[in-house]
Amino acid sequence: MRLDPLNSTFGALADPTRRAILARLLAGEASVKELAKPFDISLQAISKHLKVLERAGLIIRGREAQSRPCRIRPTALKDIDEWLMRYRRLWDERFDRLEMYLQGLQTREKRHGSKK
Amino acid sequence: MRLDPLNSTFGALADPTRRAILARLLAGEASVKELAKPFDISLQAISKHLKVLERAGLIIRGREAQSRPCRIRPTALKDIDEWLMRYRRLWDERFDRLEMYLQGLQTREKRHGSKK
Repeated sequence: MRLDPLNSTFGALADPTRRAILARLLAGEASVKELAKPFDISLQAISKHLKVLERAGLIIRGREAQSRPCRIRPTALKDIDEWLMRYRRLWDERFDRLEMYLQGLQTREKRHGSKK
Repeated sequence: MRLDPLNSTFGALADPTRRAILARLLAGEASVKELAKPFDISLQAISKHLKVLERAGLIIRGREAQSRPCRIRPTALKDIDEWLMRYRRLWDERFDRLEMYLQGLQTREKRHGSKK
């Protein structure tokens, strides 16, 4: 049985250090050393977190043996965004209003079109 | 130290049965028995999953001793949606285009306003 990749994505994000690493990577790619700097934990511990993030498809690591710079991989986060889609209607009235507004615009544009 | 509630939310969502339970609750509240039906696991196992979801703030359970109907609690999912916000620009060009389109509309409206 193929496991749903969302299992490992959500699992990886359940840790605050791993979420902080991702947030740092938003500013651009970084080496293990650079990523370890703001945390009071060993390079080994950071490496473990990076392995979890890599396995979950949340980051990609370069091939350079020494630094192996990490960068964010958006696809896995996008999958969460898509998973959330069906729940969004539970809270996002703004989203509904925007959609209605755009539908209204389209209807008006069509009417203009048919008058020509 | 207060733990970030996102830890337990993401942790709870790392399981496919718990995600399936949430999806079922989108259709409306349900009892443990109703929730167990589509799964080939015991009522005890379902109850455990419900406890994890409840602790993570993803569901609320009624007080009725027998059935304790469950329903979805959107707040925790909304927190994930907000957490995702900063990453969305990594993939959501459509979002950017929509924003530019709306800014364009506002500018045009302002111009019309000043001509009056």
